[in-house]
Order: sequence, then C-alpha cells, then structure tokens
Amino acid sequence: MKEGTTPERILVVGADAAGMSAAHQALRTAATHGRQLDLVVVDAGQHTSYSACGIPYVASGEVESPERLVARTAQQHRAAGIDLRLGVRVTRLDLDQRLAEVEVDGHPGEPIAFDQVVVASGARAVTPEWALGEDGHLLGGVRHAKTVDDAAAWAAAFRPGERVVVAGGGYIGVEMAEAGLRRGLEVTLVTRSRVLSSFAPETSSRVEEAMRAAGVDVVLDADLRGVESAAGQVTGVVLGDRVVATDHLVLALGVVPATDFLAHTDLLTGRRGALRPDATGRVADGIWAAGDCCEVMSRNGFWTYAPLGTHANKAGRVLGTHLGGGDVKGLAVEFPGVLGTSITRFAHGDVHVEVARTGILDSQVTDESIDFVALTTEGTTATGYMPEARPIAVRVAADRTTRRLLSVEIVGGEGAGKRIDTVAAVLHFAGTVDDLAWMDLAYAPPVATAWEIVQIAARRLAERF
Amino acid sequence: MKEGTTPERILVVGADAAGMSAAHQALRTAATHGRQLDLVVVDAGQHTSYSACGIPYVASGEVESPERLVARTAQQHRAAGIDLRLGVRVTRLDLDQRLAEVEVDGHPGEPIAFDQVVVASGARAVTPEWALGEDGHLLGGVRHAKTVDDAAAWAAAFRPGERVVVAGGGYIGVEMAEAGLRRGLEVTLVTRSRVLSSFAPETSSRVEEAMRAAGVDVVLDADLRGVESAAGQVTGVVLGDRVVATDHLVLALGVVPATDFLAHTDLLTGRRGALRPDATGRVADGIWAAGDCCEVMSRNGFWTYAPLGTHANKAGRVLGTHLGGGDVKGLAVEFPGVLGTSITRFAHGDVHVEVARTGILDSQVTDESIDFVALTTEGTTATGYMPEARPIAVRVAADRTTRRLLSVEIVGGEGAGKRIDTVAAVLHFAGTVDDLAWMDLAYAPPVATAWEIVQIAARRLAERF
Repeated sequence: MKEGTTPERILVVGADAAGMSAAHQALRTAATHGRQLDLVVVDAGQHTSYSACGIPYVASGEVESPERLVARTAQQHRAAGIDLRLGVRVTRLDLDQRLAEVEVDGHPGEPIAFDQVVVASGARAVTPEWALGEDGHLLGGVRHAKTVDDAAAWAAAFRPGERVVVAGGGYIGVEMAEAGLRRGLEVTLVTRSRVLSSFAPETSSRVEEAMRAAGVDVVLDADLRGVESAAGQVTGVVLGDRVVATDHLVLALGVVPATDFLAHTDLLTGRRGALRPDATGRVADGIWAAGDCCEVMSRNGFWTYAPLGTHANKAGRVLGTHLGGGDVKGLAVEFPGVLGTSITRFAHGDVHVEVARTGILDSQVTDESIDFVALTTEGTTATGYMPEARPIAVRVAADRTTRRLLSVEIVGGEGAGKRIDTVAAVLHFAGTVDDLAWMDLAYAPPVATAWEIVQIAARRLAERF
Repeated sequence: MKEGTTPERILVVGADAAGMSAAHQALRTAATHGRQLDLVVVDAGQHTSYSACGIPYVASGEVESPERLVARTAQQHRAAGIDLRLGVRVTRLDLDQRLAEVEVDGHPGEPIAFDQVVVASGARAVTPEWALGEDGHLLGGVRHAKTVDDAAAWAAAFRPGERVVVAGGGYIGVEMAEAGLRRGLEVTLVTRSRVLSSFAPETSSRVEEAMRAAGVDVVLDADLRGVESAAGQVTGVVLGDRVVATDHLVLALGVVPATDFLAHTDLLTGRRGALRPDATGRVADGIWAAGDCCEVMSRNGFWTYAPLGTHANKAGRVLGTHLGGGDVKGLAVEFPGVLGTSITRFAHGDVHVEVARTGILDSQVTDESIDFVALTTEGTTATGYMPEARPIAVRVAADRTTRRLLSVEIVGGEGAGKRIDTVAAVLHFAGTVDDLAWMDLAYAPPVATAWEIVQIAARRLAERF
C-alpha cells in the first residue's frame, strides 16, 4: 500500500497479551515504514492486557486491587492510536467477505469489515455441566480463576474460617489453594491424578507434601463427579461416593482455545480447536493468530498447547512486526519455538516451595531411538553453612546415547525456581548434560554452592552414562 | 603402568579446591581402570578444602564457626586413601630430579620424590610493605581475609563501636565491609578506583550507593599510601595527605599466584607468575596444574587470571580424570573455558543488593572489528504488583554487526543476581542478543515479569541495532 491511500483495516480479536502486543507492534513497525494502519481491537470483556497469572494473588490479598493486574488501560491503548472496542464479542468470522459478525453487550451489532485479521481470542476455562445451575449460569459459590472479575470476586468471597474446594491440581489450582490459606480458609484441593501432573511423580510429591504441611487437604486421584447445592448455592463437592462440604468451589480444570467463531472454517487444525500459525504468526492469507487460541511449535518439532502469557507476548510481538511490514533493519523475527518452561511457587507461613520445569515431558519422549535416563539430585540453594541455604532437588533427564539434555525439573525453597532459566538456555541451544555441568556459572556463598546444584545434578547423571 | 608394579607417586602441591578435587578424581578414575596411585598431598597450612569465599560470613557472624568453612577435613581425605601432609611448604620443585624440596613447620624437611606433580598451590594475598611491622610481620590490627585463620581472627576482632578500614573495593572488600557493619563497626572502604571496578561505572555506582545507604563510608580513587601505627598496632590509614583513624585494617588488595617455588623453571608463562595448563590440566610431561596458581582460558580465546573456586573445582576435576587414566566411558573431558561469570551480594539492614556479571570485560574488547554497543534497562525481579518485586538493572553489551552477546551485568534486589547464569549459558553457546531476548524462560508473578527483565534488556538493545 502506498502513502496517501486509505489505511488497511486490521481487526484484532482479543485485547489481551497476544492481541495488544500484536497491535502495538504492528503500529510501531508500520510507522517505521511511514505507513498507517486502521487498527480495530475488539474484546468481549471489559478489561485489556491483564495479568491472568496474577489472579490468585488478588484472591489472596497480596495484591490489593484487581485493577493492578491491568498492565495497560483501555485509555492508554486508545491514546496509542488503537480503536479499542470492549464488550464486543465476535460470533462468526466470515473470511470470504472479510466481515466479523459481532454481539455488542449481548445484542447483535453491526458487522466489522477488515482487510486482515488477527485472532487472539485466547482460551476459555473448562466448565463442567454439573457446575451450572438451572439458569445455565454457574452455581453460587462456584467460579473460575480466569478473569479480572474472578479475581475481584474471590478477593471479596474468601472469608476466614470458611471452606473452599479447589478443583484442579495445575498451576492455578495450586496458587488458588495458597490464596485460600492466606485468607484463612480451610482448603481442600482435589485433582484427578497428582498435583502438577506434568511433572515427574517425585516432583509432584514434594509439592504435595509442602501443600499438606501448610494445611491444604490434598485429594489425589479424585473422582470428581459433581456438586451438591441448595438454593442455587454450592454446599458440597462429590468425590466418588463421599461429599466434601464447602462454601466455595474454585474451578481450575484447565482451558481450551476460544475459537468457536471459527468453527465453520478449516483453520482449526490443532487439537481442541486450536490454530496453528507459522513462526511469523501467519495462518492463511491475511489471517494471523497468536496466544492461547493457538498451539505453539516446540523447539523439538512438535505442536503443543501451552497457553502461557510468555508465549502470547512473544508470538504477538512477532506477528505485529510482520503485520506492520516487517523489520526495517533487516532482522527476520520468528517465534523461536517453546521449550516447555514453566514455574510456580507455593508459599504460606513457613512453607515456601518453588517448582519449575523445562524441556519435553517424559510422555512426549516418543522417539524410540532416545535412550531416556533421569536422575534426581538434592542439594542447597546457597552454601550449606549460610543461613540462606534452602533445600533443592533437581531432576535431570537426558538421552544417554547423544548426551543431549531433554528436561529438568527443579523443586526447592526460596531462590530455587528461576534456576530453570539456565537450563532453558541450554535447551535453547540443544546442549548436552556436559554443557550444563561444566559451563561457567556464578558462585557466592549466599546464593549458590561452589558447584552449582544444577551442575552437580547434570554431572551426576552424566557420570552414569 | 601394569597391575602389580609399584604405584606411581603423584605429588599434589596444595590441599584446597583444585588440589583435592584433582586428588580424589584421580583416585576414582584410576580405580575404574583397576589402578592404584600413591597420592601425596602437601599443604603449607593446617586446613584443607576450605571455602575462602565464606570468610566474610564468618567475620560477620552469619556463619558461627570457621570450622564450618572446611568442606572436608584432613581425616576425611586420608580415609579416602590420600597421604595428606599439612604444614609442609614446597620451597623448590626440581623437575629434572622429580624432587620437591620442602619445609616442614618452618624447618627444612626430607625432599619428596614424585613421578608426576600437580601444582595447585593457589594464590597469596597481596601485602604492601607498609603493612608490615619492624619484625616483618603484619602490624597488629592488620590482616587479610584469605585463610580460615583470618576468618577466625576477624570474627574475634570485630567489636561493636570499633572502626575498621577495608582496603580494596573488590568482592572480598565489599563483603568484608558488610561483615564490619553486621558486627556493629564503623566501616570505611577505600578503593583506588571504583567499587567492583571490573563492572561498568554505572553498575559500580549502584553498589556504591547501596553501601553508603547501609552506612559504609566509601572512599573512591583513594591514594592509599600506608598506615600509622603505635606500639606495633595500626592506628590510622594514610589516604593522600589525610589520615583515617582506625582500629582495624582489612587488606583486600587482590591475590597473585603462589608459584615462587617454580621461579627457576620456564613454566611460569602467564602474567604475575601464573601457569598456563592446557584444557586437560597438563603443563608439561608429568606436570599438571589447576586453580588460583593458573591463568584460565577464556571461551573467547585469551588467557585471563580469574582466581575463583568454581574454576579451581572444575579444572581440578578435569585434571584428576586425566591423571587417573582418562575417562573409562569414552568421554574426553576438557575444561571448557571461562566466561567471566561472578557474583556477590551486599546486604545489611534494609539494604540488599546482588551484583553479577558474565562475559568479557569492556576493556577486553580489543578486536577492532567488534562494533561494541551497550544499554542498561531497569525493571523488577517480580511482577510490579507483587510484594516480592525488587528493582533490577541489566546492562547488556553486544556486537552490533554480528548481534553476538558480549557481556551482561546485573545489579538489583533479592533474586536479581543468579539470573546471570541464564546469560552465561547463552554466552557458553556464543549466542546472540536475539537468543537471549526470545528464548522460553520461566514466568510467574512472584519470581519474574511476563517479559523476563533480562530478555527485555536484550530486546531493547537489539532494537537499537
């Protein structure tokens, strides 16, 4: 498009991490080319660019106001030149006509025409049928932990001495259990398998033990069948043939791509209705996607559904660069692929455990030529004689034949978790256990051991080869 | 050597990190080959395998007893089959005769014959002439912070309300200043240039500010001329034409290789009398070396003097593997070279600053083809709305032409410092700023920002290219 012509209309569906990253980066990049864009962003909700990961910390009271989760307000986005329209839900995307059919505040609205579209509609939380009342809405006392409104609602609802059941043993479940404890509730966490079941059983166990030590009643292998309620209000959670009485139920059962409005297209090639954009964010001609509505490519070469803000931010930014006309300085930016890095913390009272992983899951090791071997090593986060020393366990997995590092899990006290980034960097370069074991890492007694524990763990495994 | 013959006599000079790592690894490796070694380790001191880095924390009282710095006792080493002889100083190494001339507890002793020798004699602290009394010993109140005895001495000497001058603005100087504060002393730190002068001036300044905020009187660009004393006891430190009155003087003016006993040989090819072993630890036929008596090879291809326990441990272990007959499992272990990684912490009261670096020093960028560019970015260690968030500043330097990462400095609050390891891993693989900026690192609100601050810093620099 030349200067002086009508700016291209870009419609971004979804005003969260991926969508807003894409929008701003597209504007910035277009500007460096002397171009303008007509950028319309729509979102069904009333909040933009919020930190979903912060919800448990609003619920717990560590963060005082849910407004603090909003990284940039609607006003700030608009000031940057984005036509942001909140309360606008896209119900169907007509790719031939390049029209978005919408509902505005629940009522049919004027369709929005576009030249190109960015699908950044995110994910929606899984809602079991049994959680709904007769009116089709969630029963009283039952909520997800997915939106800013959820954060505010839990912050208001959690009262000392009450009981909460958290359904789901993933990150959000663990974090919401912590929130309940911090608010003084009796907390039960139920999970159909283990706590943090993407981790190895021994790592899960360590987190589970910490949660129990802090006072959470953890129910593993739970047969969660439904709820009991009275007058539209949850009163109990049915586990097999018993009922756990409760005042509140947090639904933390995972999320699925929010792509219903694309169900009539052939774009949803991923599992669970996910999109599969290429490394530039492109799905098809004039159609882009990023964030939790997409699968991401693993650096090991397979698609995976990893709905994390880190990927959404990066993929959105890459997409925006291309949408805005590409990098003027000759740098071809591509989403580099994910490693499977994640982290959380569980802390209450004297209990503080950080747990993190990176690399492929054991279950993803399907290549039979891989001679999988794993070993867990225990140590300390600081030199043993220092008051800062906390226990840490590091599980290293590698391919015995090639010595290539496959994955690492870390669980331990304060300072343990972010050590995972060092491992992620090694995986980024497809390094070996020897690279990890021998490279030049930082040592001082208050923050490490002379042989850094992650290196000891790698070396011990390497010596078993 | 075949089984049944007399075991080869290996003499290890120095019973600290490098020497003992080498000795144990040699024994272990030899054992896997079914071989025995006659391993004699001598050390002029009375302590083995102690953590020199822990000395300031004994001085400060954080570590209760200097004995806790000893990782393995003489007894433990002997139990592993090592003929450990303490109080034995090698005065001259006769390489032709393969004889070590020694002093035992200060008196000439029986020379020790050897087949092979490991030089792991470490470093000695720099001692200015003016610090000595008429008897040739250090004046009263004046000490280094180098040995277990120093640790015990400072722990006993530091009394609340007294004054201490710390001479030297390096790691040990900064840490001993912290120790003085923690003991309730009035602390003055004098340095001939800046605090932590291997860092960029802006990083030094942040540490200096933290030290001042905690109560240290920091004297930069100090013209340290000597001391004043009375009755063999230090009373003041002469800075240019003024005198700073003091009760104690910590000498933290750096170290030099302790290789006088090799002065007559042609082995000391490094600066300041350092050895330059190859990547297996070999210096010449039957002569090996590791630790603070050696320079180390940088991964950028130049020799550098970096007397750190991390290198000593690694180089000693590599050396021991080769000395013991090589790795039986076919892995050729070589010391991978150093990156220039280091870290320390300064903490007292409300002040807590961690400071770390990796990569070549600005002053080491001598290749004129490198288009050096650096940028400092400020952020937080956790998401801004979390109570855990602490300020952090990250300085990234790179080559604008190749985009290759050159170095990173980090300074910030709790949790800031060990992030340097992630950068070290990128440097280990000769990665670019883009690798650092875009790889898959861990995010959760209590421990990071959604764009990890180290990645923001890398990305911001990359965008200026």
